[in-house]
Amino acid sequence: MGEFELIRRYFAAAACAQAGAGVALGIGDDCALLELPAGEQLAVSTDTLVAGVHFPAAADPFLLAQRALGVSVSDLAAMGASPIGFTLALTLPGAEAAWLQAFAGGLDRMAQDCAVRLIGGDTSRGPLSLTLTVFGRVPHGLALTRAGARVGDLLCVGGELGDGAGALALVLGQRQAPAEIAEPLLARYWSPRPQLGLGVALRGKATAALDISDGLLADCGHIAAASGVALLIEQARLPLSPALLALLGASGARNCALSGGDDYLLAFTLPAEHLAGLQAQGWPVHVVGRVEAGAGVQLLDQQGQGITPQARGYQHFGSDGD
Amino acid sequence: MGEFELIRRYFAAAACAQAGAGVALGIGDDCALLELPAGEQLAVSTDTLVAGVHFPAAADPFLLAQRALGVSVSDLAAMGASPIGFTLALTLPGAEAAWLQAFAGGLDRMAQDCAVRLIGGDTSRGPLSLTLTVFGRVPHGLALTRAGARVGDLLCVGGELGDGAGALALVLGQRQAPAEIAEPLLARYWSPRPQLGLGVALRGKATAALDISDGLLADCGHIAAASGVALLIEQARLPLSPALLALLGASGARNCALSGGDDYLLAFTLPAEHLAGLQAQGWPVHVVGRVEAGAGVQLLDQQGQGITPQARGYQHFGSDGD
Repeated sequence: MGEFELIRRYFAAAACAQAGAGVALGIGDDCALLELPAGEQLAVSTDTLVAGVHFPAAADPFLLAQRALGVSVSDLAAMGASPIGFTLALTLPGAEAAWLQAFAGGLDRMAQDCAVRLIGGDTSRGPLSLTLTVFGRVPHGLALTRAGARVGDLLCVGGELGDGAGALALVLGQRQAPAEIAEPLLARYWSPRPQLGLGVALRGKATAALDISDGLLADCGHIAAASGVALLIEQARLPLSPALLALLGASGARNCALSGGDDYLLAFTLPAEHLAGLQAQGWPVHVVGRVEAGAGVQLLDQQGQGITPQARGYQHFGSDGD
Repeated sequence: MGEFELIRRYFAAAACAQAGAGVALGIGDDCALLELPAGEQLAVSTDTLVAGVHFPAAADPFLLAQRALGVSVSDLAAMGASPIGFTLALTLPGAEAAWLQAFAGGLDRMAQDCAVRLIGGDTSRGPLSLTLTVFGRVPHGLALTRAGARVGDLLCVGGELGDGAGALALVLGQRQAPAEIAEPLLARYWSPRPQLGLGVALRGKATAALDISDGLLADCGHIAAASGVALLIEQARLPLSPALLALLGASGARNCALSGGDDYLLAFTLPAEHLAGLQAQGWPVHVVGRVEAGAGVQLLDQQGQGITPQARGYQHFGSDGD
């Protein structure tokens, strides 16, 4: 048995230990088999992370696996889908037991948090990279796409923005901070919490949704384009965490929220009549703007005047990343 | 717009041009959405190909794309599944228009041949590699797994074996051959034909199946292990192509068939009563052995005596491949 066969067995053991709603056949055959209840659709998303581009090659393997799976599952949350399973294509230079054990541990931790099961994959020798494909289910016609925002809807986000981007300088060792500031930011970076519950709660209510990966301005641009509307963002309403404000000050924190990335929180458009009900149920729904007729994204100051953002667009980790 | 955004648009255009049975939402949102008819299961398989490990970095991009998709779809054939779609995670050092155009062309050619649609993906900068995840559908309970072979079944294959392995020396430029020998072998290597029709025809008939990727002996070992039986292979019954026999002689051709790889033809166990019907319908069903009680795989000569194969196990392309 080759070392890569051993790796496969390692992950197979982790996968079998988990519950399998919707999974008729897991790892070990030519294909996995998934079941879908009548009247539901399958949501599918694929993400690749490359060492040196999307993460430092020396990243802690537990944290890397946890983050990679969390980021991928966040795409299911953005569609209002309930997770079923995922495949992992792992390419790595060699089989180091300690690295693999930590990686499998991080994967298992996030898989349990998200109730998602490893159903298949492939292991190859080569430069370190990961491709995850995630599967979820959503009732027919209730998936949250980017295309339904309507004039008059509120623009909302699912939590405090910018922490992931603010953490990047800490991740890269370019900046230091006391533990009470660094720890919550690093936790947001390495352990994203896909807003699966919020996504399900928004079914039939939100008119458009996505998860914020490239910064609020850029991602709102996707909703505006797909829906054929303009999105207005009121800068003063951006929810910012105490840790981010302490690290970067108000202006720096706002820049992270608007033009940073790696939030993996939902942004969505919501008819106003649904706001109070969702908030009363305890869902984190923060109004940050509104939908108007037109095109593109406009940032507004407290007087409702347009502002040109200081920075726009975001490159994950490395400058060449995409 | 970055160059990688341009790449995504290139593939998006190719995907939209194709028919979309089973695809409710394709490329461009957080997830694709698939539909599954009532009473069917979704079959999923993921494969990674890494430059320098699974294929030469200088491989023709049209042929590379065609082969990568064909190899992946072959896993659907092995389950008796009908293809729906696939995702492509493409990592490449840069965006060269000629390379991308040829790659997209090869992908589109094989996608049309297999009636499978590009439904999503991810494009990253990094060392050249591809991860494809393929999706198919199969009626509940009719998927062909590796686990159902029964004592008394015939062991069958879907065509002439060893051509892909025989072609490898030609692919690598280690060997030359006249066109009438080289061309059919190279076609088998670069343009695998997933046996989707045969897979569907075997539903409810074959008791176990897989596609041969690592050589008949190794892959039959998977069926034997999963089914808890022994498989006997009669060496004299191996179907071998004229081109492979001309290139390598009888002994070399047999070695490729038994211990080579890259065939991507089906191997399956079949109750004898189904043989004549399938052959009468024109399906390529070649009996190469039988299922007995016991464990493992045994190779037999024409007198029914056990033979020790000359070579066993196979490394794709590079010696470190897996």
